[in-house]
Amino acid sequence: MRAEILCVGSELLLGQIIDTNAPYIAGQLARAGVDLHRKQTAGDNLDRIADCIRGGLDRAEVVVITGGLGPTTDDLTREAIAVALGVELEYREELAEGLRAFFSKRNFKLGDSTLRQAYLPAGTTSIPNPVGTAPGVRYEKDGKFIFAIPGVPREMKAMLDGTIIPALLENMEGEPQIIVSRVLRAFGIGESALADPIEDILTTATNPTVAPLIFGNTEVHLRLTAKVKTEEEAKVLLDEMEARIRARKGVGEYLFGRDEETLPSVTLRALRGVGQTLAVAESVTGGVLSYFITEVPGSSEVYLGGVTAYHPDLKRQLLGVPAELIAEHSVVSAEVAAAMAEGVRRITGADFGLATTGEAGPTSATGKPVGTVFLALAHAEGTIALQKDGWGDRDSIRRRSALNAVDLLRRHLAAE
Amino acid sequence: MRAEILCVGSELLLGQIIDTNAPYIAGQLARAGVDLHRKQTAGDNLDRIADCIRGGLDRAEVVVITGGLGPTTDDLTREAIAVALGVELEYREELAEGLRAFFSKRNFKLGDSTLRQAYLPAGTTSIPNPVGTAPGVRYEKDGKFIFAIPGVPREMKAMLDGTIIPALLENMEGEPQIIVSRVLRAFGIGESALADPIEDILTTATNPTVAPLIFGNTEVHLRLTAKVKTEEEAKVLLDEMEARIRARKGVGEYLFGRDEETLPSVTLRALRGVGQTLAVAESVTGGVLSYFITEVPGSSEVYLGGVTAYHPDLKRQLLGVPAELIAEHSVVSAEVAAAMAEGVRRITGADFGLATTGEAGPTSATGKPVGTVFLALAHAEGTIALQKDGWGDRDSIRRRSALNAVDLLRRHLAAE
Repeated sequence: MRAEILCVGSELLLGQIIDTNAPYIAGQLARAGVDLHRKQTAGDNLDRIADCIRGGLDRAEVVVITGGLGPTTDDLTREAIAVALGVELEYREELAEGLRAFFSKRNFKLGDSTLRQAYLPAGTTSIPNPVGTAPGVRYEKDGKFIFAIPGVPREMKAMLDGTIIPALLENMEGEPQIIVSRVLRAFGIGESALADPIEDILTTATNPTVAPLIFGNTEVHLRLTAKVKTEEEAKVLLDEMEARIRARKGVGEYLFGRDEETLPSVTLRALRGVGQTLAVAESVTGGVLSYFITEVPGSSEVYLGGVTAYHPDLKRQLLGVPAELIAEHSVVSAEVAAAMAEGVRRITGADFGLATTGEAGPTSATGKPVGTVFLALAHAEGTIALQKDGWGDRDSIRRRSALNAVDLLRRHLAAE
Repeated sequence: MRAEILCVGSELLLGQIIDTNAPYIAGQLARAGVDLHRKQTAGDNLDRIADCIRGGLDRAEVVVITGGLGPTTDDLTREAIAVALGVELEYREELAEGLRAFFSKRNFKLGDSTLRQAYLPAGTTSIPNPVGTAPGVRYEKDGKFIFAIPGVPREMKAMLDGTIIPALLENMEGEPQIIVSRVLRAFGIGESALADPIEDILTTATNPTVAPLIFGNTEVHLRLTAKVKTEEEAKVLLDEMEARIRARKGVGEYLFGRDEETLPSVTLRALRGVGQTLAVAESVTGGVLSYFITEVPGSSEVYLGGVTAYHPDLKRQLLGVPAELIAEHSVVSAEVAAAMAEGVRRITGADFGLATTGEAGPTSATGKPVGTVFLALAHAEGTIALQKDGWGDRDSIRRRSALNAVDLLRRHLAAE
């Protein structure tokens, strides 16, 4: 069963609103095993809406429409369905009754325009709206369906989950299929470097399918999507595929987590696992590293805190970095990163000290190129310091460097 | 000139991602005076993408495509344009050169798949990508345009603003009308509290129009939109309207900036204006405050750094907060906030010390309700400490508290 979504509303086309309805509907359709082929957005224009509906009915079995069911004259979805089906609008006394009851219960004045909502295209039925006034529209003939519901998210959800999804499940041939996804999250590797070793899987695997996706400028995700009868069956298929991917050379070490897990959350979990604590000393990241760490609920169990030594003097005053070391190597150096990590470990008593120093731009204070970054990890057995440059704009360099620092600790804990 | 947007990517249809690209593109097209008629979303399926492109070219003059330009085999936009135009893909050595240069500069391995990005449909040219690898595709014939750019927001924006919009403006007939917007940004006030004193303006102003909009959970924006012939004409109209709004009682003090100005950027500018420096002591915000401050390029001129004293012991060890004070008032108190602000001012030598302490949740460590937050500002003449609770989830409470702390300093500087 194939579906299309049509979102109606000029405000969606003007870029003034981010459409969160369509992703919700898409997710619910996917879970129900309905194949979503296309999503369209049309402004408040009768011919264009009707054209989108006709096109949708040609290409798919189901067209789900949101928006354009309100009481004003720019709410045109009812008319457009009528035009697309080649029928007239009909007045439905029972809908008018419902509207009158809704308004009188709330002591609202029923405007004339509200009664526009009592009209439906001939041959269609209404979809009850349990949380608002506008009734939806339902059409069903020869295995083709149109469902129109309001764009107000609360009403949309109630009517989608209450009427549309059950109606579709009822009309599905054979045993219903569900779609279950799992995301494997990779850090520190580019999309093609991750895709190349699993190219055969990406091109041939069908259940689950595997698709790579750049995420938020710093991660690459592999999305595994299984089409199955039960959640248990999905788990078996997804576990198998995940193991197959992880076994590939040059892949597993980058896959730090799944679904909602973040690089900081898995790293803090590992730290908790060995019962050790962490403190940070930041320069180039200016607080981002501490922010990312404390985003994780419960981080206070293993994270003591840190120092943002943004001005060079604070590196001396607060972290005890020797002035001669700064003079000899500059603040942007592996030596200073190491001294910062050791310094914050010493003054806080943490088991691990993690440090960042570098140039985030837009201009360079030390003469080293923007993007130059040094990281260090100090622990009981010694200190690791390395150059790990960032790229992109100021924000990218800072975020990437903070995550690189966390990844340095993650890899250290994994190797232990 | 009519346009359609086509977003490519199965992840958009599966409801796993909220599309923020289309609203951005829609907004920029509107600014340029291009009429957006329809928006379509297609999954990673060659025939369906090609069908959407053909439909778009039939109905409109301009089709802007995002996504599907990556290096993997499910990136099908290049092929789909070729299919829609009835042409073949051609290898372009100059694009391959560019890809090799990009990768070698970053010491990345160039995978075979990356070279897929060096192919373009015959009869099209490339759109330079200043911030990533994937080149875009540009087609222009008989007054019809196709522009395809990556779905990665940073690359999409750079290429839309850098190439597509200028190309469209160049091709527009007659004297173009331009749409110029200005955003007035408010912090610390709700949407209706800001809207009420200017209700008459919101409902009657036509050029510029004024519309309130909640922004990112912490700000309310007033968007002023003028339809004019020239930027100069826009400036006059927008300046007049801004002055009219600012003059209203209970409005001006909340309007901290315009357009790209942020609460930290205007506050640091004020600090620079009086030649003074700042340091922070964070507990509940855990680095967010320092992160927000150092997001501003050039912040190092006035921001010395700070201490994230996440563990109570660090408040004593690093900031010199007396143990008895903590024992008597708990770490979540105005007294401890004040001692933190004074402590960080003392150890860094900054003119201003700003501190946060509170409960961000999900659970409370001190027994005080989640959302309880105390802020303090220490300076040469004394210390201000106050309770300023946050609300929402952990992230909201932390971000809002960091911004409340910055706003405390902004208002102090404005009053001086």
